Amino acid sequence: MRIKFPVVAFFLEITIIILFGIFVKYDISDRGRNFPKESWLHPRYCFSFFSVFQDVHVMIFVGFGFLMTFLKKYGFSSVGINLLIAALGLQWGILLQGFWHMKYNEIHIGIESMITADFSVATVLISFGAVLGKTSPVQVLIMTILEITVFACNEHLVVNVLEVNGLPASMLIIIIIIIIIIIIIIIIIKRDCWWYFPCYNNLKKNIFTGTLFLWLFWPSFNSAIAAAGEAQERAIMNTYFSLAACTMTVFASSILIEQKGKLDMVHIQNATLAGGVAVGSCADLNILPFGAMLIGSIAGIISVLGFKYLTPLFASKLNIQDTCGIHNLHGIPGILGGIASIIAAALQVNNNLSPGMQAAALACSITIALIGGAITGLILRLPFLGQPSDQNCYDDTVYWEVRLNYTGDSTELQNLQKAYSRGNIPSNR
Amino acid sequence: MRIKFPVVAFFLEITIIILFGIFVKYDISDRGRNFPKESWLHPRYCFSFFSVFQDVHVMIFVGFGFLMTFLKKYGFSSVGINLLIAALGLQWGILLQGFWHMKYNEIHIGIESMITADFSVATVLISFGAVLGKTSPVQVLIMTILEITVFACNEHLVVNVLEVNGLPASMLIIIIIIIIIIIIIIIIIKRDCWWYFPCYNNLKKNIFTGTLFLWLFWPSFNSAIAAAGEAQERAIMNTYFSLAACTMTVFASSILIEQKGKLDMVHIQNATLAGGVAVGSCADLNILPFGAMLIGSIAGIISVLGFKYLTPLFASKLNIQDTCGIHNLHGIPGILGGIASIIAAALQVNNNLSPGMQAAALACSITIALIGGAITGLILRLPFLGQPSDQNCYDDTVYWEVRLNYTGDSTELQNLQKAYSRGNIPSNR
Amino acid sequence: MRIKFPVVAFFLEITIIILFGIFVKYDISDRGRNFPKESWLHPRYCFSFFSVFQDVHVMIFVGFGFLMTFLKKYGFSSVGINLLIAALGLQWGILLQGFWHMKYNEIHIGIESMITADFSVATVLISFGAVLGKTSPVQVLIMTILEITVFACNEHLVVNVLEVNGLPASMLIIIIIIIIIIIIIIIIIKRDCWWYFPCYNNLKKNIFTGTLFLWLFWPSFNSAIAAAGEAQERAIMNTYFSLAACTMTVFASSILIEQKGKLDMVHIQNATLAGGVAVGSCADLNILPFGAMLIGSIAGIISVLGFKYLTPLFASKLNIQDTCGIHNLHGIPGILGGIASIIAAALQVNNNLSPGMQAAALACSITIALIGGAITGLILRLPFLGQPSDQNCYDDTVYWEVRLNYTGDSTELQNLQKAYSRGNIPSNR
Repeated sequence: MRIKFPVVAFFLEITIIILFGIFVKYDISDRGRNFPKESWLHPRYCFSFFSVFQDVHVMIFVGFGFLMTFLKKYGFSSVGINLLIAALGLQWGILLQGFWHMKYNEIHIGIESMITADFSVATVLISFGAVLGKTSPVQVLIMTILEITVFACNEHLVVNVLEVNGLPASMLIIIIIIIIIIIIIIIIIKRDCWWYFPCYNNLKKNIFTGTLFLWLFWPSFNSAIAAAGEAQERAIMNTYFSLAACTMTVFASSILIEQKGKLDMVHIQNATLAGGVAVGSCADLNILPFGAMLIGSIAGIISVLGFKYLTPLFASKLNIQDTCGIHNLHGIPGILGGIASIIAAALQVNNNLSPGMQAAALACSITIALIGGAITGLILRLPFLGQPSDQNCYDDTVYWEVRLNYTGDSTELQNLQKAYSRGNIPSNR
Repeated sequence: MRIKFPVVAFFLEITIIILFGIFVKYDISDRGRNFPKESWLHPRYCFSFFSVFQDVHVMIFVGFGFLMTFLKKYGFSSVGINLLIAALGLQWGILLQGFWHMKYNEIHIGIESMITADFSVATVLISFGAVLGKTSPVQVLIMTILEITVFACNEHLVVNVLEVNGLPASMLIIIIIIIIIIIIIIIIIKRDCWWYFPCYNNLKKNIFTGTLFLWLFWPSFNSAIAAAGEAQERAIMNTYFSLAACTMTVFASSILIEQKGKLDMVHIQNATLAGGVAVGSCADLNILPFGAMLIGSIAGIISVLGFKYLTPLFASKLNIQDTCGIHNLHGIPGILGGIASIIAAALQVNNNLSPGMQAAALACSITIALIGGAITGLILRLPFLGQPSDQNCYDDTVYWEVRLNYTGDSTELQNLQKAYSRGNIPSNR
Repeated sequence: MRIKFPVVAFFLEITIIILFGIFVKYDISDRGRNFPKESWLHPRYCFSFFSVFQDVHVMIFVGFGFLMTFLKKYGFSSVGINLLIAALGLQWGILLQGFWHMKYNEIHIGIESMITADFSVATVLISFGAVLGKTSPVQVLIMTILEITVFACNEHLVVNVLEVNGLPASMLIIIIIIIIIIIIIIIIIKRDCWWYFPCYNNLKKNIFTGTLFLWLFWPSFNSAIAAAGEAQERAIMNTYFSLAACTMTVFASSILIEQKGKLDMVHIQNATLAGGVAVGSCADLNILPFGAMLIGSIAGIISVLGFKYLTPLFASKLNIQDTCGIHNLHGIPGILGGIASIIAAALQVNNNLSPGMQAAALACSITIALIGGAITGLILRLPFLGQPSDQNCYDDTVYWEVRLNYTGDSTELQNLQKAYSRGNIPSNR
């Protein structure tokens, strides 16, 4: 581990810097395909778009990072490895997405590239939720590179080849979720560490931090790459109402299905976000606020039922041990959203979308996900990637140095004093 | 509880969805009464306004939520029920405010509706601070519906009937605070649980999270509905300077009044925000930065004195047990702000405001608050709403399921393993 | 302490209010030197700029505040005194910077003044990191006033007299860091409390909160005062890529230099930000993304090496006990950035910068820093400023009142009940 991780990390970073040096240039004038031309002249224009980027950026680093801190002994890895994945993924994502849109062998990047890079990072972080606590940092680096590659190829096929332009990012994310579940099945199928898992941070209020920042900025996420103007405002409002309605039904169903009539923090922490996932695929369509609320309400109920009944079933019968329950938060609500967007297209609320092409994009994405997921999973199982043993799962101290923790004992104090006088700061004990 | 809460929550959500389906439409072109016409054409225009909305949104969910987490055993309910109130309140607020501005029997909503909805939610969350730990989730749902109804009727009377347009939102909030104190008196007067209350999270730095996010985004709050342009910039700057001066006097007076000359975390956590409350009513007036700093300085001192001397007096003599001390943070500074705005109007710093109409609005608001507060309080006392008994106050475990918390014991491990092999994930013990 | 602090704090606040009353006016029309004229007409214009201000504001209060909460018993002072410094510093900073740009004996302020005030606060907060746990609140007030005065004079000399306009703020910050290290040497040289220091909040995930908010909003920080348009977008992108590359090399080198091959939370918490510091001086230059990534990569490695080898060496041999290790995070990466900007200027990537003037500005800043730092340090050593004794270092309870902490004992409950019936709320025990 001491040699492997630095070698892989430095190799990846040096490769990326070289590729950036060869290909990547600023593209100041291109503020994205959706911008009308006159707006390019606006002097502080970049900052309005930039503030949307910042919302998404907070979701990726604070939202996803803290959403995964519910494991009692794994908070450092949750937030820290989340940061590592995001830092690598955004660089790789900009390269991969750029390769499909090169002009004169140059990749031109602007603020919009940073938003789409964050989107590709989101898919990796969702799948990180499924393998949380069971993978080594080296595995995580490889997973990031492979998943973003599969994601970028799929996006190219769907957007450029099939020309399904109106399809929002969350549609593609659904598909990647399917990849991830397959990866889990393949990698984790023989792991025997499931009973270590439910070490919850009981009644620690801070586990809601991630949920809140995701909840608050999800409207920015769903609207960031929508067409400017009306479509964008619709995307904001639909996501906002879907999340509000979803929250109500999650609280109601969490109490209803629990024998003692109590709220379950796992439901509140996760399922309240299902409304944002489910409305994603049709966020910018003219589905009216009540349509968004209907989608959100149903997503909330389904997600709570998933956490209550599907997770134990998957874990015990199918050996799919999904740490964060991403199949309940992203998987099923995502598929619900896909169906909703096909219905919305069929009802002709929007003329630009054809149901046939949507279905084709879905089929294409599933195929790529199956193949890409299988390859990723098999590569991750390679023995030299340092997968932790069953006993080392869900434990920060395997990868993190515990710093000196002076407790006030006087002998300890004297030893410390001596150590300092010799020029050493003892770093752990 | 297991049946009551889901019934009430689902009933409210279904009603809201039906009302939204009948009345609510997007109003993309209407970006609020304050916008000059040419700006409607700006393609990404919504996002500038949207970033102000996001600031207010963060205040509501993160700021208010974490401000109330100082109770040792009540952090889950503080953040969780805060989310529930906000999710219900924003939907109901959009409906209620919309009913007074219908066009052709349609409610047209845009980003500005989302901001004003967040404002009406703020009033409910402030009053939630006063009854924190002493109310059931069902009572909270009813309180949200009733208070927002009273708030919206009062706003209609003040803004549309009395035509006091320049009056900022915080003026109305003051009045609602009075409602709330009345509600507290009525509901809580016989509660005998005050001594359970001071279970502080001593020296836990995270209790400042809520304070910081409120402090940082208060300029957005006070300026969000000000007239665009100069008035808005004045509102931002006045709030910023008032908060800075207030913070200085709070630190100074907190140390001065404490016999041992130490800082009291309750003062720092709460009273530093009094500057934002007090300057609210005249934030957009031409009071100059030093005027704002004067208001903030006085508000800080008054608020600290309130926490030190009024709270114990109210609790022991008048039986007003105000959990978060909202009368010190919102009540008195709010009244101070109302007086300051009348003085500012009298000094003719702004021609549009007449002192007479301001006083009329104040009288109208007080009357509505007294009636509305009494009705709300009486309804909340209805026995079937599940008010917690004195022993169950300030305790998360009454409403929240404690998840399995594996501690590492080997027998426990074997039992878990067996449970999983039977397909059960034990959810508590 | 009970008298001294309130006297100093009230005196400073009253002085500031009087000076504001005499000099400070709103300057609504002046939205900063960088704005083209036609944009002044834009009605909600201030808000785009305002959202950048909010990003910087979050960094100052949440980012810096929580970055310093790693000390187990000093979290309240870290976040609380951070708030005090910022509230005083922003008022003083606006005055001082205004004095150099007066028109007709008036200081005209707008949103941009608020951003530059936050910048001057940042320098004080960085130096607060070096003396964290070892200074009294009175010393902190004096330090804030003195450092901002030195900072403003230096800025005036560099920008107005030497006319080095293109030099970004971080260049000046580097110099101030040097001041601070000198201050530390002077004040703390005989402190014998170093071994109390390493009381880390081991594996508490929340210590990453500050890091994340700084990491996320650093692009806003580096671009806020860049020239509008292309330079600003370059500053955003360069900072973003520098931070991402830096994070990769920090993870890799942290594992590499640790004998057991584990991550050290101190490196991840601090050194991941070195990329933002180092790229600051040339953020708006045309250094291309790969140039920014190179700077970030090197800064990350150097910063990790500093925390590992320099901090123990400085502490034991030179008696420089730098609590937060700011010489590793801001000092060395800042100097690296200064060198990079001179190289960039020499390579003529930007015609406006002359290497000679940059060197002159550097020399001027160092001179002022040496003199200003020595004066500040000597004043801070004055005995009546209440510097804590060695035994009282790194301990919140010296300055903070510990509130009543009811633990559930029944005798305690009865005593509480009696106390309340007599009208007292016991505030500690």
